[in-house]
Amino acid sequence: MMASRHENPALNGADACVRILGVDPGLNITGYGVLEASDGRLRLCEAGVIRGRCHGSLVERLAEIHAGIRDVIASLRPSVMALEELYSHYDRPRTAILMGHARGVICLAAAESGISVSPYPATQIKKVLTGSGRASKSQMQRAIQYELGLGQLPEPADVADALAVALCHFYLKGRPALKQKPVGTAFAGGTTTNHRP
Amino acid sequence: MMASRHENPALNGADACVRILGVDPGLNITGYGVLEASDGRLRLCEAGVIRGRCHGSLVERLAEIHAGIRDVIASLRPSVMALEELYSHYDRPRTAILMGHARGVICLAAAESGISVSPYPATQIKKVLTGSGRASKSQMQRAIQYELGLGQLPEPADVADALAVALCHFYLKGRPALKQKPVGTAFAGGTTTNHRP
Repeated sequence: MMASRHENPALNGADACVRILGVDPGLNITGYGVLEASDGRLRLCEAGVIRGRCHGSLVERLAEIHAGIRDVIASLRPSVMALEELYSHYDRPRTAILMGHARGVICLAAAESGISVSPYPATQIKKVLTGSGRASKSQMQRAIQYELGLGQLPEPADVADALAVALCHFYLKGRPALKQKPVGTAFAGGTTTNHRP
Repeated sequence: MMASRHENPALNGADACVRILGVDPGLNITGYGVLEASDGRLRLCEAGVIRGRCHGSLVERLAEIHAGIRDVIASLRPSVMALEELYSHYDRPRTAILMGHARGVICLAAAESGISVSPYPATQIKKVLTGSGRASKSQMQRAIQYELGLGQLPEPADVADALAVALCHFYLKGRPALKQKPVGTAFAGGTTTNHRP
């Protein structure tokens, strides 16, 4: 398993604070993003993707996703995981069922680490970030960029979706009166590393 | 988490042999059955169900299923897990996606225990056991009863489905010229215990 990470080195070893892990489950690419609410400010700690091996079996890929999320939880110590809620109207049922496998091992990783899981409907995530439950992907990317003060649009889509659900959790359940502190370089200068060397 | 088990005490502590774990994944009830091929004979080691708590959250139930399957693997040491293959045409997509969550953590338990996972299409399982890919549930139950020499029909349906996929694996990948040894009392005299006291 490999993961590409966008890290904010200034936040490594940060003091105890509220951290929210957003995850966008997928068998091939699982996006994640960790936000930190501390000292009245909201910051991006780290965002990245966990990639399964192209030719790995379903079972191998599930083990990689599970290990990857466990690693992220162990190293960044979030107190909650935010996920998009299940929805039942899929055009491609097979893809949805496979996504369910990935979501299952991600939820399990949260349970094993003792952190709670908060699900949010896709329309609610869009509405919280943009004011519209029907916002487009690019509208969502711009909202995330603005909210976190990023130097560029969050990419790939898996990372953007993970950050979106983390932001949704923050605004609905986090501290309501926080001031935002832009971090700017998290995506612009993000490094790409092997997640589990 | 609770599990009801149908045990065959004569097989506890059996010598090293080929054991096949069949699993029927479900969020509320996951059925399992372990068959043993040894000394030219096919036997039922144990079959039962892992029940999630009625009011448990999805995450709690996934953790229970995962722990339950890991316990079964640890105590009965199968060398392979047989599962019904994914299929994409579900009448109830939400149920299918939830089942995907359960199947995900079950596959993960196999990966963590180093045992392989063999998926079989539902029609193939039916055909191998009855000669027809469209066999009814009661035809399947009777076939399983006959193949394993059980004193009564396998119940509940989750256990029957788990035994069916294990038998399918045995006949397609197991030893082809085995003689069957009826065990008779496995279901008739099965005990019900707390799986994880």
